[in-house]
Amino acid sequence: MASPVASAALKARVGRTSLLKKLCRPEDMLHHFPHGAYVGWSGFTGVGYPKKMPTFLADHVEKNNLQGKLKYTLFVGASSGAETENRWASLDMIERRSPHQVGKSIAKGINEGRINFFDKHLSMFPVDLVYGFYTKDRPNKNLDVVVVEASEIKPDGSIVPGASVGATPELIQMADKIIIEVNTAIPSFDGLHDITMTDLPPRRKPYLIMGVEDRIGSTSIPIDPEKVVGVIESDYPDQTTPNSAADGCSRNIANHLIEFFEHEVTHGRLPKSLLPLQSGIGNIANAVIGGLSESNFYNLKVWTEVIQDTFLDLFDSGRLDFATATSIRFSPDGFKRFYDNWESYYDKLLLRSQQVSNSPEIIRRLGVIGMNTPVEVDIYAHANSTNVMGSRMLNGLGGSADFLRSAKYSIMHSPSTRPSKTDPIGVSCIVPMCTHVDQTEHDLDVIVTEVGLADVRGLSPRERARVIIDKCAHDEYKPILTDYFDKAEFECLRKGMGHEPHLLFNAFDMHKALVEEGSMRKVKKR
Amino acid sequence: MASPVASAALKARVGRTSLLKKLCRPEDMLHHFPHGAYVGWSGFTGVGYPKKMPTFLADHVEKNNLQGKLKYTLFVGASSGAETENRWASLDMIERRSPHQVGKSIAKGINEGRINFFDKHLSMFPVDLVYGFYTKDRPNKNLDVVVVEASEIKPDGSIVPGASVGATPELIQMADKIIIEVNTAIPSFDGLHDITMTDLPPRRKPYLIMGVEDRIGSTSIPIDPEKVVGVIESDYPDQTTPNSAADGCSRNIANHLIEFFEHEVTHGRLPKSLLPLQSGIGNIANAVIGGLSESNFYNLKVWTEVIQDTFLDLFDSGRLDFATATSIRFSPDGFKRFYDNWESYYDKLLLRSQQVSNSPEIIRRLGVIGMNTPVEVDIYAHANSTNVMGSRMLNGLGGSADFLRSAKYSIMHSPSTRPSKTDPIGVSCIVPMCTHVDQTEHDLDVIVTEVGLADVRGLSPRERARVIIDKCAHDEYKPILTDYFDKAEFECLRKGMGHEPHLLFNAFDMHKALVEEGSMRKVKKR
Repeated sequence: MASPVASAALKARVGRTSLLKKLCRPEDMLHHFPHGAYVGWSGFTGVGYPKKMPTFLADHVEKNNLQGKLKYTLFVGASSGAETENRWASLDMIERRSPHQVGKSIAKGINEGRINFFDKHLSMFPVDLVYGFYTKDRPNKNLDVVVVEASEIKPDGSIVPGASVGATPELIQMADKIIIEVNTAIPSFDGLHDITMTDLPPRRKPYLIMGVEDRIGSTSIPIDPEKVVGVIESDYPDQTTPNSAADGCSRNIANHLIEFFEHEVTHGRLPKSLLPLQSGIGNIANAVIGGLSESNFYNLKVWTEVIQDTFLDLFDSGRLDFATATSIRFSPDGFKRFYDNWESYYDKLLLRSQQVSNSPEIIRRLGVIGMNTPVEVDIYAHANSTNVMGSRMLNGLGGSADFLRSAKYSIMHSPSTRPSKTDPIGVSCIVPMCTHVDQTEHDLDVIVTEVGLADVRGLSPRERARVIIDKCAHDEYKPILTDYFDKAEFECLRKGMGHEPHLLFNAFDMHKALVEEGSMRKVKKR
Repeated sequence: MASPVASAALKARVGRTSLLKKLCRPEDMLHHFPHGAYVGWSGFTGVGYPKKMPTFLADHVEKNNLQGKLKYTLFVGASSGAETENRWASLDMIERRSPHQVGKSIAKGINEGRINFFDKHLSMFPVDLVYGFYTKDRPNKNLDVVVVEASEIKPDGSIVPGASVGATPELIQMADKIIIEVNTAIPSFDGLHDITMTDLPPRRKPYLIMGVEDRIGSTSIPIDPEKVVGVIESDYPDQTTPNSAADGCSRNIANHLIEFFEHEVTHGRLPKSLLPLQSGIGNIANAVIGGLSESNFYNLKVWTEVIQDTFLDLFDSGRLDFATATSIRFSPDGFKRFYDNWESYYDKLLLRSQQVSNSPEIIRRLGVIGMNTPVEVDIYAHANSTNVMGSRMLNGLGGSADFLRSAKYSIMHSPSTRPSKTDPIGVSCIVPMCTHVDQTEHDLDVIVTEVGLADVRGLSPRERARVIIDKCAHDEYKPILTDYFDKAEFECLRKGMGHEPHLLFNAFDMHKALVEEGSMRKVKKR
């Protein structure tokens, strides 16, 4: 079959014309994907991921009944698109995956033991990759093939990513072969990125960023043209979904937080324009950013991992001056709004690699206000961000610990309860002991639920427990948690081991009641 | 009572002669220490702490039966001297303490609930202090009085610390009143420090350190002379104790580690001179540094928290080029050796504030090799560094998480077992689930015991469990841990929640056997 002919749209995006000679169809690239290959994809939070090559490989496996016979180790900065990654998982094409994922089939594969998944701090994953830690047992010590989406190829062969940077710079650094998908269904994002590559110690240098708008890199990712084995035209945009809307619970949480910020400004611990905000994903995060759009705070800045639709509202409200992240994950409507008003947004946005967006160095220097949602928080302010009942993986750690460890304000926001199958408040998000710990008591400053806000700065564990139960627990769970704490305190102080009192062999009794009785409320009195 | 007369020794140390007018006796300062005062001391790991003022206050309480009637909130960078801090605790003089402590009486006070203690990352404590987080409920928003030891006062009034910097810069920044103890029983340490103060965001700047020997600050700590309320001559040195010697177990651990370093060099993941080493406190740390003194590694560098006696051996062996830390905690013999050979050591050593020595920014940039000893490690590579049985505080987190989160190589070294009261191997340091988590599975690369070394980089939790049990657990505990893991895996995979399999309600059965039967070996078969 003859090589495809470059469309006018594609030619307009490929400044390095010699690369057009490598224009190909996905099927031409099949031989680069033998069973067992180590594969990297661009992408982060479901944007900027390659579409044609992964979809072709999935079709190929499906058509030829190769399920379980073409399996790959797959590295993507964070989650990829559902139609690629999740479909790969459903076709049993993933042997190993890191550092983060979203999708029912991939979660199923992980929790049924078919996919070896490890989650890692998103700032650290690309560094450990370049250290060679993840390819140490490979003959080539590298990734076999990396597929990256570009919105443009520059005359020097470097690529302009789309709506995310993620781990693409480091994946490319570690690639033996590179396939570029040039996406002509989205505009060129030229100028919207600040790209840095990763040096090895002892030759690493400071990130000289002192404000969210500072640029320290180039606008595109350098690529060794000899490593490029194919260029594919990609013709559909990122398949994102609408954002979840704020509900009453999340609006209450947002109100508590905004009141807290006002309190901190009044006491001189925060400037009037606050400090750079980091906000996670989900309806609480949306409510917080939404709440700020109606607040008295102006000249706000954002240093975060993912920019979502509500940030457009914050821009439009005149309150947000600048936002930087490693990905722009808008809904389809959000992307339309963004493209339609490109001129009013493009110079207030900057996308960086996830190593930089999540860099502890910069987060601490800038004094970021970090906000995240956990699975559960315990009475001593540890938090579980990853494993339900200590064992079932949700999506992975993500950047939660990057931000919460180093932020000036480390904030966990959560509903006080979630429904179980049989009880609308069957799960308390405040528990005696987390079943998995991702954020430690040494990391968190503030816990907030719709009930209230617990400021635990400078408190001892026993003081923290009282404040968290009092301010954050659902009324139904306050007596249950108080009962646990009182008994633990009595027993442990008596034995001279009462710094952080626990009834170690009853610490998970609420979880046990959930499993056995369908609700944490049904925990037995001790 | 007339003011004391300055000795010749003191005059020689006080370049700012106007401060000699404030020369006083500790008793003259008593009125600055009302009940409830917020007090800061210099000092870190039992060196560089003030001696006269704390001892006088303890005497005062003892003589006048004021136990429990003069209580203070006490902030010191880490642990102070036993004859000061621990005596204060035994006299019930400590209401609140952070971020770290060493001493039987203070641990007793904490675990019996009389002292409100909170441990915090040592890099973060001084920053949170300057943020005003720990004094937010105080009328003056500051520390009432800070007592610092100096080995010299410069003509501009700035002070040259002794054998530690710790949190002294920030304690001084936050002090309403300052008392300086000039210690004439130790030499002036002039030139041995690199001092930086703490700016608030958004005005914080990068730490422009790219090598362990880089200087970015001044040689002394600036002090506002108007805040100085008294100068006291101190006349005895830091009361340190001899170091614990390496034993067979710790030498085995050191050998495994040195073999691992050689392996990494062979595979090109480490330079021949390794990367800057961080080593904790204790006999394993001593054995590792001792082992390096007899190794084939040269031109070594150290970026750590505390420098101990074995580093002198490493210097003398010709293998160590430079070492930097926030304290030099030598034994009495070590200090003698250091002072006697000052000329051969002083330009190879640099002391920085604990915020800098433990800075995640610098640790990650330099690619430090971080090594620490935990209470226990679990089969999925979480570690407990602080609370025995989840509740009993030992010394506090220290810098363990500062280093283990950001190091290039994050290494936990531990004996595979410790004795219980009735069984010489009654406690396994490898457990199914840690009873307290300070280091998460996302932080650790290598676990090593005298049995062997588990390299868990890039492994999924279930893979990690097998490797850690196989390589690190004591033979007696291998079948017990394997039994737990096999059953947990079977149960959780069956339920589709097997990413990190746990039998949540039996996870602490080994700890239960220890409590009830005196040994973890006596855990009941499930």
